Amino acid sequence: MKTNPGNSFEDFRLGQRIRHATPRTVTAADAALYTALYGSRFAVQSSDAFARRIGYPQSPLDDWLVFHVVFGKTVPDISLNAVANLGYADGRVLKPVFPGATLTAVSEVIGLKESSNGKTGVVYVRSTGFDETGEAVLTYCRWVLVHKRDAAAKVPEEHVPDLPKVVNPQELGAACPALDHAAYDAELAGSPYRFGDYQAGERIDHVDGMTVEEAEHQLATRLYQNTAKVHFDQHAAAQGRFQRRLIYGGHVISLARALSFNGLANAFHVAAINGGRHVAPLFAGDTVYAWSEILDRAELPGRSDVGALRLRTVATKNRPCGDFPYKTGDEFDPAVILDLDSWVLMPR
Amino acid sequence: MKTNPGNSFEDFRLGQRIRHATPRTVTAADAALYTALYGSRFAVQSSDAFARRIGYPQSPLDDWLVFHVVFGKTVPDISLNAVANLGYADGRVLKPVFPGATLTAVSEVIGLKESSNGKTGVVYVRSTGFDETGEAVLTYCRWVLVHKRDAAAKVPEEHVPDLPKVVNPQELGAACPALDHAAYDAELAGSPYRFGDYQAGERIDHVDGMTVEEAEHQLATRLYQNTAKVHFDQHAAAQGRFQRRLIYGGHVISLARALSFNGLANAFHVAAINGGRHVAPLFAGDTVYAWSEILDRAELPGRSDVGALRLRTVATKNRPCGDFPYKTGDEFDPAVILDLDSWVLMPR
Amino acid sequence: MKTNPGNSFEDFRLGQRIRHATPRTVTAADAALYTALYGSRFAVQSSDAFARRIGYPQSPLDDWLVFHVVFGKTVPDISLNAVANLGYADGRVLKPVFPGATLTAVSEVIGLKESSNGKTGVVYVRSTGFDETGEAVLTYCRWVLVHKRDAAAKVPEEHVPDLPKVVNPQELGAACPALDHAAYDAELAGSPYRFGDYQAGERIDHVDGMTVEEAEHQLATRLYQNTAKVHFDQHAAAQGRFQRRLIYGGHVISLARALSFNGLANAFHVAAINGGRHVAPLFAGDTVYAWSEILDRAELPGRSDVGALRLRTVATKNRPCGDFPYKTGDEFDPAVILDLDSWVLMPR
Repeated sequence: MKTNPGNSFEDFRLGQRIRHATPRTVTAADAALYTALYGSRFAVQSSDAFARRIGYPQSPLDDWLVFHVVFGKTVPDISLNAVANLGYADGRVLKPVFPGATLTAVSEVIGLKESSNGKTGVVYVRSTGFDETGEAVLTYCRWVLVHKRDAAAKVPEEHVPDLPKVVNPQELGAACPALDHAAYDAELAGSPYRFGDYQAGERIDHVDGMTVEEAEHQLATRLYQNTAKVHFDQHAAAQGRFQRRLIYGGHVISLARALSFNGLANAFHVAAINGGRHVAPLFAGDTVYAWSEILDRAELPGRSDVGALRLRTVATKNRPCGDFPYKTGDEFDPAVILDLDSWVLMPR
Repeated sequence: MKTNPGNSFEDFRLGQRIRHATPRTVTAADAALYTALYGSRFAVQSSDAFARRIGYPQSPLDDWLVFHVVFGKTVPDISLNAVANLGYADGRVLKPVFPGATLTAVSEVIGLKESSNGKTGVVYVRSTGFDETGEAVLTYCRWVLVHKRDAAAKVPEEHVPDLPKVVNPQELGAACPALDHAAYDAELAGSPYRFGDYQAGERIDHVDGMTVEEAEHQLATRLYQNTAKVHFDQHAAAQGRFQRRLIYGGHVISLARALSFNGLANAFHVAAINGGRHVAPLFAGDTVYAWSEILDRAELPGRSDVGALRLRTVATKNRPCGDFPYKTGDEFDPAVILDLDSWVLMPR
Repeated sequence: MKTNPGNSFEDFRLGQRIRHATPRTVTAADAALYTALYGSRFAVQSSDAFARRIGYPQSPLDDWLVFHVVFGKTVPDISLNAVANLGYADGRVLKPVFPGATLTAVSEVIGLKESSNGKTGVVYVRSTGFDETGEAVLTYCRWVLVHKRDAAAKVPEEHVPDLPKVVNPQELGAACPALDHAAYDAELAGSPYRFGDYQAGERIDHVDGMTVEEAEHQLATRLYQNTAKVHFDQHAAAQGRFQRRLIYGGHVISLARALSFNGLANAFHVAAINGGRHVAPLFAGDTVYAWSEILDRAELPGRSDVGALRLRTVATKNRPCGDFPYKTGDEFDPAVILDLDSWVLMPR
């Protein structure tokens, strides 16, 4: 058979290295589409002139755009038969990506754990994106629940990797050049609040809501060449559990990030993903809101230009976030769809 | 509070100068998205080869695209709490904008007038867009009805500016280089009719209709980084007056402009906005039609290459314009959504 | 009247040459939008680095994108009053098109045949796209059923052209540079199957389905500056035969082509269109599936780098293609919407 059936749980091997298909040259057009899809307003990514003034050669592409393109490549090999995308850890942005770069991706299987029912298993991978020079631009771990083709199949070797709960601040900033933070024009950037103005424990309602249409998430997900059929095939979805197309979880992340401009306008760079969970699915017609909590603050070794804020960003559907909905005990508020833990950089 | 609450009427001061956030580098990708959103076919903006042949260094960006990007920047400061966008005057395109330019915007408060009920007020601003060299590319006045936070608040100084009803033809053409109009290929441009072929009083039905989808106006409005929440948040809109998201008025202007190609194919440049009024709201699912009347013709001082036509362009929803629907007495036809008065340039 | 009424059957003359309006500079932004609209993953068009490695100067634009842009230009003159687009023949891609090229189009009337009822007639044209150097990039024949304005009008000269059923393999490859097929990285391209691995008679279900939204086909069709009003005007369509907007047939072709990656990932270039028929209309909300049959294989004279596969690609709506739905006798399966016969190139 010449078509791709995707991998089942028993097809993966610990230590296996998968070089993914479809290299992709990303351009200023991807940046413009990203703006049209999410309305992102961070000045560094929006303006070449602004970026140059503080020390970039030009505007870098949005960090999540780079993530989505790399992620998309991994789908046909890793998650075509996935039941669920369970989590992320140890994500680090390693190099700024500028228009014209060509991205490729490689994944390594770092963990395998069969489910007790024998019908599925969890596959842990570390995926890394590279540019055309062969340098890594992004790396992250994720784990997915994958079907077994044959419940009787034996799984040779199991291992659950020990992943860090939080990326060490020492490792942040690799993708951020030394900046002239005096040249950072806060008025143009949209907010006077810099690194020093945020406190651990502070919570920020991002106020605005964004309703998602089918055409929008399909355009986005195809732009990333993500082929997971749950996002595109209404004819099949109509017979499924939700009767609806599921919106790519990364679309929610980018919406929450764009909404977070209102309150975090100077958080110009996502440096690391500590963890993330797609708590509930989003469907077209739903309206996404978000809020963030500052979990921690960190200075970066040897850098007086930028500091790092550790954020919990929570996105909800059809529920404004003025009262910061999250969990009651271990139970998520039913409106919560995303719980994301990241490090962002801000000028000092 | 670190989020932007927007300005209320009593926050504005006569003479106040507001430097708006989010500089934006506009590229050929914005031009392509603009084509995808409206189907614009004016040859000068569509073809570098055509533009070069007549004297441009390359295709300039569409004048309304530049307007929308500049307008978008003003929203968080001027109209986040607006009840209504009341009008435009004295809009002039001052310099062609080419892909790669970075646009910023500044507004000056030129008028303030409290409403008699004391709950709202009209704010008049002159907004000007600049490129990365600091040169102005576009300037226009608009006035918006804005809520007061506190009905009891005193407004120190009132003033209603005296704005021109029509931009003086002497001021037109600043954004249009000297053209070789003999090199203007009318067949490629799509119409044999030039400046000399149009008469004041002539009315043109633009024939075609365009139905608007939610995804389309949202993509457009985000591309312009316009954050007015009425365009994006269905959850909030469901509780509002219309129960629907409102389509950005500028989206209607661009649709009418694109439709006007059929009958005005050689009106390659919008040189000035004399006035404009969004007569009624447009919603997704509605179909836009348009017609134009030539209100005046003007030669431009010292220019034998191009002449100016003053147009009234009327857009309707769900009503073809073969009989030129407009007003009965002072009352607009119920189908009319836009009444726009502009100067366009045509080769002679 | 200054608006374009389109041509009726009696307006065409055998041998007539029509130079179409609206030259269009195509850029990397059109390529990105094309990816967002269809999710295309062919490595040559997706990655500049991949394309360069095998012998292109950079990624060429997708062949069907070029087709749609050229086709769009012909609509206002050829098919604005068309009842139906009946078929294609002898389509050949003549030169690769790279971002920055400006495309124009010319059509020649090569056949005219009045219908027996005297109310319509078939117009046969050869349309050719040119770049800004004046070189032809694409040529194809199509025939459309067009209304007569006046049933009594006489048609001076009738002729039905003799069009080839299949493009001669000798004529293929003009748009494909000599490639270093050893440098073709099949893993990156997404499939190990090359020219030698496909047999005539082989059938491939492309598995995946793609649901189409109104916003998507409108964005695409406007991107191509195709003005046929059946695609855009719901107000008019509501009174018509289908009560719906019709989706541009080329949108279906591009969806089928993108879906065909799953099974034909190395078919990197569409070299010729032997024939094509839009069997039934597609509407928003429908899900498109596709399958292909290898009709023939051909070596290209003097070329050891690439070989040609002749494909029948069948697209359906709301019906997966695991059992290869096509015809019963002369009758198409009711789910079939496209029957396309093309030559594609693959590395050897």
